[in-house]
Amino acid sequence: MSESASAADKIKAVETYIASFADSNPQGIISIFADDATVEDPVGTPILTGRDSLRTFFSKAVKMGTRLKLLGPIRCADDYAAFPFAVELNLDGSDKRIEVIDLFKFNEQGKVIQMQAFWGPENMQDI
Amino acid sequence: MSESASAADKIKAVETYIASFADSNPQGIISIFADDATVEDPVGTPILTGRDSLRTFFSKAVKMGTRLKLLGPIRCADDYAAFPFAVELNLDGSDKRIEVIDLFKFNEQGKVIQMQAFWGPENMQDI
Repeated sequence: MSESASAADKIKAVETYIASFADSNPQGIISIFADDATVEDPVGTPILTGRDSLRTFFSKAVKMGTRLKLLGPIRCADDYAAFPFAVELNLDGSDKRIEVIDLFKFNEQGKVIQMQAFWGPENMQDI
Repeated sequence: MSESASAADKIKAVETYIASFADSNPQGIISIFADDATVEDPVGTPILTGRDSLRTFFSKAVKMGTRLKLLGPIRCADDYAAFPFAVELNLDGSDKRIEVIDLFKFNEQGKVIQMQAFWGPENMQDI
């Protein structure tokens, strides 16, 4: 088993990710990803690949006022970090909260090479 | 994208899984898995394959008094269910609590074909 990064490094990346949403800072969000990273959000929908696609995706999320709130500890195992959180955002004029579990896979440079977001319609509510 | 089972079916499987620990019922635990299912707990350790290996693994867990407590909603997406929970068990005479995220992948028959448990030493504490 190859360890890509320490648990502390992975936790720091997740914290940077969440703080960058709070700061409306797409560049901060993008900074944790590898150049050829993939994003599947939610799992089962088309996969975005590469920095330009991710920048478009996350810039749009920031414009929607997206905020993330961690709902429990970050779980690190092997090359992965998994964590439960709530997303709050404005969707077509309506405030929504979605409870999500993200799974980040890290490469040997400590960058996120794969992001998968697990959530379904059952996890979305009006707030 | 092929949907293996409805979200309701997946949620029911997870609930059966948790209830079977509470009932000290290894057979109930095994019942949610496909014959050729794999279990990786925690991720990064050797993968168990098949019903006999799973029966040994879960029987041992039941003997340790393992209890699972859901810590948030089950997130269903595509062929997957992900959920945050705490495991409480007796490890070598000491009571422990581990905060885990499990990821179940379902086959077309609605059985769990792959289980991955995400947790690390940072997620374990004495109770």
